[in-house]
Amino acid sequence: MHMRRAFYIGRFQPFHLGHYSIINDIARDVDEVVIGIGSAQKSHEPKNPFTAGERVMMIRHALEDADVMHYAIPIEDLQRNAVWVSHIISMTPPFDVVYSNNPLVVRLFKEAGINVKQPPMYQREGYSGSEIRRRMLADENWRSLVPEEVADVIDDIDGVNRLKSVSGSDAD
Amino acid sequence: MHMRRAFYIGRFQPFHLGHYSIINDIARDVDEVVIGIGSAQKSHEPKNPFTAGERVMMIRHALEDADVMHYAIPIEDLQRNAVWVSHIISMTPPFDVVYSNNPLVVRLFKEAGINVKQPPMYQREGYSGSEIRRRMLADENWRSLVPEEVADVIDDIDGVNRLKSVSGSDAD
Amino acid sequence: MHMRRAFYIGRFQPFHLGHYSIINDIARDVDEVVIGIGSAQKSHEPKNPFTAGERVMMIRHALEDADVMHYAIPIEDLQRNAVWVSHIISMTPPFDVVYSNNPLVVRLFKEAGINVKQPPMYQREGYSGSEIRRRMLADENWRSLVPEEVADVIDDIDGVNRLKSVSGSDAD
Amino acid sequence: MHMRRAFYIGRFQPFHLGHYSIINDIARDVDEVVIGIGSAQKSHEPKNPFTAGERVMMIRHALEDADVMHYAIPIEDLQRNAVWVSHIISMTPPFDVVYSNNPLVVRLFKEAGINVKQPPMYQREGYSGSEIRRRMLADENWRSLVPEEVADVIDDIDGVNRLKSVSGSDAD
Amino acid sequence: MHMRRAFYIGRFQPFHLGHYSIINDIARDVDEVVIGIGSAQKSHEPKNPFTAGERVMMIRHALEDADVMHYAIPIEDLQRNAVWVSHIISMTPPFDVVYSNNPLVVRLFKEAGINVKQPPMYQREGYSGSEIRRRMLADENWRSLVPEEVADVIDDIDGVNRLKSVSGSDAD
Amino acid sequence: MHMRRAFYIGRFQPFHLGHYSIINDIARDVDEVVIGIGSAQKSHEPKNPFTAGERVMMIRHALEDADVMHYAIPIEDLQRNAVWVSHIISMTPPFDVVYSNNPLVVRLFKEAGINVKQPPMYQREGYSGSEIRRRMLADENWRSLVPEEVADVIDDIDGVNRLKSVSGSDAD
Repeated sequence: MHMRRAFYIGRFQPFHLGHYSIINDIARDVDEVVIGIGSAQKSHEPKNPFTAGERVMMIRHALEDADVMHYAIPIEDLQRNAVWVSHIISMTPPFDVVYSNNPLVVRLFKEAGINVKQPPMYQREGYSGSEIRRRMLADENWRSLVPEEVADVIDDIDGVNRLKSVSGSDAD
Repeated sequence: MHMRRAFYIGRFQPFHLGHYSIINDIARDVDEVVIGIGSAQKSHEPKNPFTAGERVMMIRHALEDADVMHYAIPIEDLQRNAVWVSHIISMTPPFDVVYSNNPLVVRLFKEAGINVKQPPMYQREGYSGSEIRRRMLADENWRSLVPEEVADVIDDIDGVNRLKSVSGSDAD
Repeated sequence: MHMRRAFYIGRFQPFHLGHYSIINDIARDVDEVVIGIGSAQKSHEPKNPFTAGERVMMIRHALEDADVMHYAIPIEDLQRNAVWVSHIISMTPPFDVVYSNNPLVVRLFKEAGINVKQPPMYQREGYSGSEIRRRMLADENWRSLVPEEVADVIDDIDGVNRLKSVSGSDAD
Repeated sequence: MHMRRAFYIGRFQPFHLGHYSIINDIARDVDEVVIGIGSAQKSHEPKNPFTAGERVMMIRHALEDADVMHYAIPIEDLQRNAVWVSHIISMTPPFDVVYSNNPLVVRLFKEAGINVKQPPMYQREGYSGSEIRRRMLADENWRSLVPEEVADVIDDIDGVNRLKSVSGSDAD
Repeated sequence: MHMRRAFYIGRFQPFHLGHYSIINDIARDVDEVVIGIGSAQKSHEPKNPFTAGERVMMIRHALEDADVMHYAIPIEDLQRNAVWVSHIISMTPPFDVVYSNNPLVVRLFKEAGINVKQPPMYQREGYSGSEIRRRMLADENWRSLVPEEVADVIDDIDGVNRLKSVSGSDAD
Repeated sequence: MHMRRAFYIGRFQPFHLGHYSIINDIARDVDEVVIGIGSAQKSHEPKNPFTAGERVMMIRHALEDADVMHYAIPIEDLQRNAVWVSHIISMTPPFDVVYSNNPLVVRLFKEAGINVKQPPMYQREGYSGSEIRRRMLADENWRSLVPEEVADVIDDIDGVNRLKSVSGSDAD
């Protein structure tokens, strides 16, 4: 019997309830979800505060109790869009369908002849990494936007202070 | 008898009538034109929608009937300006003169002791890659700015839709 | 309560019963095992026939019924031994101890002040990737050296023929 | 009317009569031949004495009088076999068929679902880059193995002395 | 007797009196100062006009008469913050303390458990690379902001004209 | 008054009395010696056990009492011989002459039109990095082949044991 797998990619800076909700939706359609952690080599930047390993932890803990068979795979950038799909395929278990709302991701997989579906956009305001990072910097409430387990990981690594530090860097 | 060769570099996103006109002007002064296709590794980006191979096609087809002996050579970025001239030289047939209006290109070749000439700037409004890409995104007339053969290549690869897709990408 | 994690790295070309046995031994000492898949960017080479994604599959299927909580994380080479430990740490969940018999791995982690244990070497003859690849090339029995699930993955991807093909490559 | 194109890749260190003969054979089956110059970033090494630009010159001059429509495209190594086919495709005009006797090249294109044909092996002894480089180092006759125009390019760049110099390098 | 060493890093585009003053302050606390020249691979850019070698010259000449034992070490970017501290350590003599006011540098060394001190910010207006480069472009007085020896190096390499050239580059 | 500078490059694994003697000879001809530390990114390998920073230390301490004005500059490999000379030039203070007996180095600088001199080969048997590393592995006398200060650096970092560890690594 063929195992049906979906691929879903994000930077997960951090992993939030929007991601959580989409992955749960995808899991209803397939047997397993392959979760690509994009820009895996980046961390300690204003837009990418967390390491790939920390993001693996967020995903694992957040999905622990959900009934979602998944793989969390760090994917390093190659800076070459034309080979990106091959790069993904080489790093992951085989999948039958890609779920994405990112127009570049959609385009690249479609040009490669791979089936792409667009998950319903998660509605609630603020379910975006940039909004969460903005709230962290402004000492506003960000915890309601992420799974509880993700907030724990971020606290453990002193993540909000890290984000504040690296956001204050001058470049000169 | 020494073959006189000129070097001309651009990103050609896409190749347009301004490039065409400059290359025809250069061809009057030399025996052969070496055309460097810059940022060869980039594609599927708002500023770099086309692959190097697609740009090779544009150049070949556009110059097919012109009496211009030329080489179209993809050149990948090294991200190290100090070695860029050596990189160019290693990837191309030897040349006697560089034609460029790009101040960085002019500076780098001059510091390397290579003869640089500045072609007359092509006058007609819109002869620039960024203007052409803007018109593509706005569904305005871009075809009048490129050789007919280039428009054909872009149609064949569904280039305008690709540009629209990759320009809509969000980064979060 | 602190989760106790061990790190174990290999190239897993392919994942064999020696690896399986070591990981089961490690699992008795810790709560979770982080399995690094080394040289993740390599494949289709005589010494590295399988992609990282294929190796993820081998590990997942082989460990499915074992009671081992684990993470399988592809790790790309950086070609810089001096930063290798930091690279590993950035790509993986935090771990308390490393298990390795590879002298370079042992040395690098020890110089970084990390606790390293050497698992008992698995005894049975042939439990090595190079022996298994040799048998594949010689049409000898390799299946007895790997978990049944790994043999299935290799059959699914026509792995033996791939190894034969890439081992016949001439370089000139 | 569709233009039928073939892809043929080699390192061309140097371009010899075996390559010449194969390309002429291929040219009978297609409209245009796309010639990939592999390991383009390498030069001044015992196995790779010539730059990509020098190899472009060899190919162009050797094929000048042959009735072969062709593109000579330098291809830099990515050191990732799993994305190599995508890399080739992004750097070249589209092609319908690949001609190769190299088992790795054959395998990679076949796994990508691309049509591969194996040209008849050229028979005459010595038609290999390594044999030609061996003769250069030993001051034996290598000129009979390459097109006359290639020998001229090599003489112009003092190629035999370069090969001797770089082959004498010690590594310590 | 243990040699006490401090590490101080900057891009030094160019080396100015603020840097000079900080290094002299640091030198009072330690035996030797290890000066890291960041983004060593960059040059001929608006924000990075000078090569690493030129910056080595500026530092050596400026500190020649100061009683400061120092090492000036070019450090290339790795674009991976998580391994940056290991990279620094591998390229430099061992040091006991880092002096920095850059929040990212402070954060990365602190996360690595290394002692970081923040030197008093130099007060005088204009002691920043970006202000000096702005003045160079505007033909305003920049010489008063750098050690005399640095101005000499910049004059020798025609540095102001280089900055003007590369700042005028268009990207299309 | 023009400062006359020479360039000398090696891997210095480790810095030995042969290097020491050559640099002292060079120093008689010029005002300053620029010492390039090649393959700077490598360490913890059988042929490259020491980091660039450790090699900087060896050179500085060994030359401390010699009356040799020098710069010790780590140089990372680019793996592109055709741009290597430009890379060197960008990372170092300007120099007038190169001293080398390495045929590849000699060739590359000569092709770039730079003056190269060959220092008299140091005679005493064993003055080579590979012989010293062999003796370290065999517990033979290596100390007599290096300056006393270099032996101290190697002892401080437990260098012989590191070499033994990394030389015992298996690759499978």
